[in-house]
Amino acid sequence: MNWEKVMPGVWKASFGESGLDPLAYAKSPKTESIKELGDAPFPFNGDSTFSLLTPERAIIRIPLKPTERIYGLGLQFEDINRRGNVYTLKVDHFSLKKSDGGVKGATHAPVPFYVSSNGYGILINSSKRVKIHVGIGNRKDSKKPDPIDRTTERKKWTSQPLSDAVEASVQGSGLEVYVFSGRTPLEVVQRYNLYCGGGVLPPKWGLGFWHRMRTESSTEDVLEDIQNFDQHNFPIDVIGLESGWQNFAYPCSYDWDSVRFPDPKKFVETLNNKGIKVNLWENPYVAQTSTMFKDISPFTGSHTVWLGEVPDYTIPEAQKVLLNHHQKNHLNLGVSGYKIDEIDGYDKWLYPDHATFPSGNDAVEMRQLYGLILQKMLGDHFKKQNIRTYGLVRSSYIGASSHPFVVYTDHYDHKNCVTALVNSSFSGVLLTPEVCRAESAEELLRRFQTVCFSPMMQLNAWKWNTKPWSFPEVTDMIRDNIQLRTDLLPYLYTAFYNYNQKGIPVFRAMVLESGYDSKESVTVGELDGETNLYEEQIIMEVSDQYMMGPSILVAPAFTGETERKVVLPRGNWYDFYTGALMGNGETITIKTKLEQIPLFVKDGAIIPMLSSKEVKDPNKIFLEVRHYGTKENTFQLYNDDGETFNYEEGDNTLLELKVAEGKDGKLKGQSNFINNKKYSYGKIVWLWMSN
Amino acid sequence: MNWEKVMPGVWKASFGESGLDPLAYAKSPKTESIKELGDAPFPFNGDSTFSLLTPERAIIRIPLKPTERIYGLGLQFEDINRRGNVYTLKVDHFSLKKSDGGVKGATHAPVPFYVSSNGYGILINSSKRVKIHVGIGNRKDSKKPDPIDRTTERKKWTSQPLSDAVEASVQGSGLEVYVFSGRTPLEVVQRYNLYCGGGVLPPKWGLGFWHRMRTESSTEDVLEDIQNFDQHNFPIDVIGLESGWQNFAYPCSYDWDSVRFPDPKKFVETLNNKGIKVNLWENPYVAQTSTMFKDISPFTGSHTVWLGEVPDYTIPEAQKVLLNHHQKNHLNLGVSGYKIDEIDGYDKWLYPDHATFPSGNDAVEMRQLYGLILQKMLGDHFKKQNIRTYGLVRSSYIGASSHPFVVYTDHYDHKNCVTALVNSSFSGVLLTPEVCRAESAEELLRRFQTVCFSPMMQLNAWKWNTKPWSFPEVTDMIRDNIQLRTDLLPYLYTAFYNYNQKGIPVFRAMVLESGYDSKESVTVGELDGETNLYEEQIIMEVSDQYMMGPSILVAPAFTGETERKVVLPRGNWYDFYTGALMGNGETITIKTKLEQIPLFVKDGAIIPMLSSKEVKDPNKIFLEVRHYGTKENTFQLYNDDGETFNYEEGDNTLLELKVAEGKDGKLKGQSNFINNKKYSYGKIVWLWMSN
Repeated sequence: MNWEKVMPGVWKASFGESGLDPLAYAKSPKTESIKELGDAPFPFNGDSTFSLLTPERAIIRIPLKPTERIYGLGLQFEDINRRGNVYTLKVDHFSLKKSDGGVKGATHAPVPFYVSSNGYGILINSSKRVKIHVGIGNRKDSKKPDPIDRTTERKKWTSQPLSDAVEASVQGSGLEVYVFSGRTPLEVVQRYNLYCGGGVLPPKWGLGFWHRMRTESSTEDVLEDIQNFDQHNFPIDVIGLESGWQNFAYPCSYDWDSVRFPDPKKFVETLNNKGIKVNLWENPYVAQTSTMFKDISPFTGSHTVWLGEVPDYTIPEAQKVLLNHHQKNHLNLGVSGYKIDEIDGYDKWLYPDHATFPSGNDAVEMRQLYGLILQKMLGDHFKKQNIRTYGLVRSSYIGASSHPFVVYTDHYDHKNCVTALVNSSFSGVLLTPEVCRAESAEELLRRFQTVCFSPMMQLNAWKWNTKPWSFPEVTDMIRDNIQLRTDLLPYLYTAFYNYNQKGIPVFRAMVLESGYDSKESVTVGELDGETNLYEEQIIMEVSDQYMMGPSILVAPAFTGETERKVVLPRGNWYDFYTGALMGNGETITIKTKLEQIPLFVKDGAIIPMLSSKEVKDPNKIFLEVRHYGTKENTFQLYNDDGETFNYEEGDNTLLELKVAEGKDGKLKGQSNFINNKKYSYGKIVWLWMSN
Repeated sequence: MNWEKVMPGVWKASFGESGLDPLAYAKSPKTESIKELGDAPFPFNGDSTFSLLTPERAIIRIPLKPTERIYGLGLQFEDINRRGNVYTLKVDHFSLKKSDGGVKGATHAPVPFYVSSNGYGILINSSKRVKIHVGIGNRKDSKKPDPIDRTTERKKWTSQPLSDAVEASVQGSGLEVYVFSGRTPLEVVQRYNLYCGGGVLPPKWGLGFWHRMRTESSTEDVLEDIQNFDQHNFPIDVIGLESGWQNFAYPCSYDWDSVRFPDPKKFVETLNNKGIKVNLWENPYVAQTSTMFKDISPFTGSHTVWLGEVPDYTIPEAQKVLLNHHQKNHLNLGVSGYKIDEIDGYDKWLYPDHATFPSGNDAVEMRQLYGLILQKMLGDHFKKQNIRTYGLVRSSYIGASSHPFVVYTDHYDHKNCVTALVNSSFSGVLLTPEVCRAESAEELLRRFQTVCFSPMMQLNAWKWNTKPWSFPEVTDMIRDNIQLRTDLLPYLYTAFYNYNQKGIPVFRAMVLESGYDSKESVTVGELDGETNLYEEQIIMEVSDQYMMGPSILVAPAFTGETERKVVLPRGNWYDFYTGALMGNGETITIKTKLEQIPLFVKDGAIIPMLSSKEVKDPNKIFLEVRHYGTKENTFQLYNDDGETFNYEEGDNTLLELKVAEGKDGKLKGQSNFINNKKYSYGKIVWLWMSN
C-alpha cells in the first residue's frame, strides 16, 4: 500500500472506488492541535501492509506482533481486547439475543477504527460494512506456528492459532485507510479525535440532570413532574419528550399534538423560564400526515419504515426541508435539541439492504451513515445560530467526536453498559447507560450512580415512569450522587474542554491510562458441547472500571455485589471520599458501600468542585478545590458562557490552580487567571484530602 | 421477470451473471417422475414478480397474499412459518449464542428455497448469501395498510405492518430463480426434490444402529466396545471413527495412525466380517504431513484453516487427488463412508470471506457449496463402484436430496432439533439429532427415542463415552426403542424408496400432511425493554411433531414433561401401540409414558414390520403386517439387495399388501408380488390393531 503522509503522525492510502465518505460528515481536522502533539513514526514497514481487489471485495492486511493487543471497533458491549475475533461492523441494535440478526460487531456505533497497544491506530474510512479478522486466521504464505496433532496433544492444540495480521474487507471496489501514530495509545486516540474535528464541548445544561417523560405525557403531566421533582428536591435541567408530543408518531409528523400540547410556544417558554431545556424525540420516518411530507417525499427511498417514508439526507434539498420545518416549529419556540431514534435496526424494523435512494447511494451505506449525517446537519444548524445543542442519537459512526450527541441503547445489562462506556473512548463516541427501570432499590441506586458518572445523567422514564424516589429507602442516596455529579461540573466541564481541544476522551478505558498494565487472567477452557467446542482458554479482562477526566478512576458497584476488585495503575491512588491511600500499581479488593460509587484519585490530583451548600444561588457560588496525595501539580480550570460558541473566539476563562511546596515544606495552593476573570467561579477554598 | 417453463410445473427466470451454480452439484432431474406428477398452473401473474439490478446487488420481488404462510429456507431450528422475518442464508454453525456470529438464517443447510401454503415454491439458485425479507417491509409504491398512531392506539400499532411481498437480494450482478408449482405444498416439495434428482435411498445398514467411538480410540477399544454392545444385547451396524484414526488430525492427514491402527486392512475386515460397516471422520483441511499434501497443495486457497490448506474441489484435478487417496487408503480396505466435519463455520474457525481460490471462485460461494460439493464427489465415487454409501456431513445446500449424507449439529436443544427435523422436509436435506450426552436417565431415553425416529439412529460418543446402558434404569427401554425402529425397517425402507422415486420426504412437517390445519395461537405481546420492544404479538406454532412415512405421526416426549399436546389431522387417528382411537382433526393432550415415544397412526394404515422375535436369523424372518382403524387400503412394500444400485435396473421386489372387506364384511389382508419374489421378506402375519 502506498502510504501518503497527510499530517504529523497521520498517513493515508487508498485504492479503487471507496464510495460514500464518512469523514465528509465529520468536522474538519484541528490541524493546529495535531501539530502540537508533534510527529510520530510510521508504525510499520509500508511493504508489510498490503491491499487486494477481487471482483467481489476490497481487502487490506495489516501486520500484527505476537503480543499486540487491539482495542476499539466502536461501541462494543463485551470485551476490550478484540484480538482473536471476527467482526462484521454493522449499524444495528446491540443485543445478546440471536433474534436481533446481529453478527458480532453489530452495534449502534460500529466504528471501523482500532487502536493497537503498540501505539498506532487504523481507520478504515468506509461506509460499507467492514468485515475484520483481528489476529485470527493465517494465510498459506504467512508466518505460522507449527500445527499440533489434536488427537494426541489435546491441551496444546488450539482452534485459534496465533495469527500475524489483521485482515479486513468490504464488498466493493475500493478502500481508503488511515494510519494514526502516537507514542501511547491515548495519543493515537487524541490524534484520531482531532483529525475528526476534536471532541464536543456540551452546553453546561447538557451535563445536568435529564428527565424523559412517559410517551403519552401532556403539558399538564410535564408541569406536574417538574413540581414533583422540586418537592422531592431533585434538579431538572432538561425535559425530554418522547414520541407523544407529535400529532402522529410511528411514522413521524414532527408536528405538535394539539390535544397534549395546545400551546407549544407557551409550553417551551414556561420551561425555559424555569431554566429547563426541552428535548424532542423523533425518528426519521415521515408520516403522510406531516406538514413536511409533501416537500420531503420527492427525496425519499424506495422502501418505507413503519409505513413512513425514508428521507435521503445525503441530498442538500432534503436537509433543507427538515431544517426549515424544525426551525419554524421547534427551534423558534426555544427547543434545545433532539433525540434521534430507530435509525439502527433491527433489519426487520428498517429498510432492506436492497432499498434504493434518489441519490443513488447504497442502502447499506445509507444505514451505516444515517445517524452520523443527522448529527452533522442538526449540530451545524444549531451552530449557525451560535447555540450549543446536546442530544441523543441511536447510531453513530466514524468522525462523530465533535458532534453534540450521546448514543443510547435498549441493551440494559449493567456490566455490558459499563464495558460499552469503556470502549466508547476508543472511537470518538459518547454513551449514556440511562436509568429506565429497576427491580430493586439497590439496582435503581447502582444504575443512577453509573449514570452520574457518564456523559449524560439521564432518567429515561418513557415507559416505566421510574422516579428517583421510586424506592424511598435509597432516595436520599440517589440525590447525593446527583449532587456529587453536579458539584464536579468545573472538573468535568474542563475535561470536556480538553476533549474539545486535545481530543482526550473524558470517559476513558484504563488501557489509555499511563502506568496501567492491562490485566488478563487466562483460565484453561473446559470443553462444552455448545459453548466451548474446542476447549479454548477463557480470557478475563478488566472491563468494568474507567477514568473520568484526568485523575478520577470510576469503579462502579453492581447490584448484589458487596465487594469488587479494582486495578490501580502505578503511582499512589487515594479514596475520593476520604483521601485515604488505597494502593499503588496493584489489584485491590474493596467492600462496596451502598451510598457511594467507588472513586479513586491519582496522587497530586487537583479537583475543582462547586460547593454544593450554596449551589442553588449562582451569585453565591464558591469553588472547593480538592488536592489528593502528596505531589505538586497544576490544573488549568476552564470556564465560559456555557451555551454559545463564543469560546472559540477566546471568550472564555482559564484559571491556573497550582499546588506547590511552600518554604515550610507544606503544600500550598495558589491560583491565577491566565487570560481574564470573566467567567470566574468566585472564591476558592482549598481542601487537603490526604493530610 | 420472464418465466420460461422448463418442465411440468417448473419455471425459470434469470438475469445477469448468477455465479457458481449449486444445481450443477445436484443429480439431474427425474424427468419421468415429474411428468407423472402432472402439470400445475403458474402461481401468479408473471408481471407481479419483478427483478432489479443495482451496482451492489441483484434483487427479486415475489407477491404474497395476506393469509399466505411461508415454510422452508433450509435447516432452521426455530419456528415453521418464516413470514415476518428477515434471513441471511449463510452456511454456519447453528447456535442461539451470539458468539456464533450467526445472523438469523445462518445454519448448516441454509437452502434458499421456500414453500408457500398456497401451493408453490421459490428457489433462488444462488451460491451467494441470499438475504430474504419474508413478508416484512413495504415499498413506497406497494399496497400498504393504513399507518396507526402508536402514541394514541398503542395496541393496534405494529412494528411489522402486513407486507405484500417476499423480497430477496444477493451481492452480485445477477440471479437465477425457479418456481415450483403444485396442488399441495407436498407436491411442491416433491417436484423440487425430483428436480434435484429425487431422494436418496440409503443402504439398509445405514438405517441400522450407528455407534461413534471416542476420539482417541484404538483397534482394541473398538473391539472391546463391540463386545460390550453384544454382551448388553445391543446391535451395531456401523462403527464411526472420529479424528483419532488418523496419524495427524486438525488439520487432517487422512492417513491411518500406526499406533492406534497398526493393521487398518485387518481391522476393517474384522468388522465387516461381523456385519459392521466402518465410517471415517474427516475435515477438508489438509496437513503438511498428509501423503496427499504435495499433490493437493497446488489446488488450495489463500488461507489455511487450523493451519491446514483448503482444497478447491471445484477443480476436477483436486477431486482426483482426494478420491485416489481415499480409494487406495480407505475404500480398498472396505470403508463404507465418511463423516465430513468443520465445513460450516464459525467465521473464526474458517477461511475468511475474502480468501481467494485457484478456480477464481469467491470464498463466500465456496463456503456455501463446500459440503454439497463433497457430498456429490464422494457419493458419485461410491456409485461408480455400484456401492451405496451413507454418511454424515456438517453442511448442505440446494439440490442435496439425492446425496447419501445426513446433516448433524452441535446444537443440542432437544426441541430445537425436532423443529429442525420438521423443517428439513421442506429443503431436501436429512438431519440426525444424535445422542451425545445426557444429564439424566430420562434425557438419555428421550433423546434415544427421537434418534430412533430420525434418518440416522446414531449414538455419538466421541467425547462423553455415553453408552445405551449409561443409565441402567432405562437400558431395557432404550433397547426396546431401538428394536422397534429396527422392526419398522420394511416400512421405513419403502418410505425412503418413495423419497427416491416420488420425492416424498420420509420425515415430514405436519403442514405437508393433507387434512392438517396448521395451528398458530397468537397471544398479545407484553412490552419488554429488550426482548419485545414494540409489544408484538407472540405466535406459537406446532413445531414438535412430524410424520414418518405415509401413516405414522411422531410426537416426541421431552425430558421433564409428563404430558403433551398433539394436533391430529382430519380423519381417525389411532395409538400405534394399542390401536385405540385417539381422535379426529383435533388437538388432544396425552399423558406420556416413559418407555414409549408417542406414535399415532392414520385410519387404514398398513404397516409392515419385521418380527423382532427371530430377526437375528435372516432365513427365519417373517413379516408382521399391521392394519389400523377400519379403512380399506393398499401398500406397496419395496425391497432390494439393500446395498447396490442394481435396483435402478429393476432388480427389486414390489409386494402389494391389500386390505379389503371380505364377503363377511370383515377386513381381510392379501398380498401379491407385482414384479418378482426375489427380495421377499417371507411369511406374512396380519395383525388387526383396531379390532
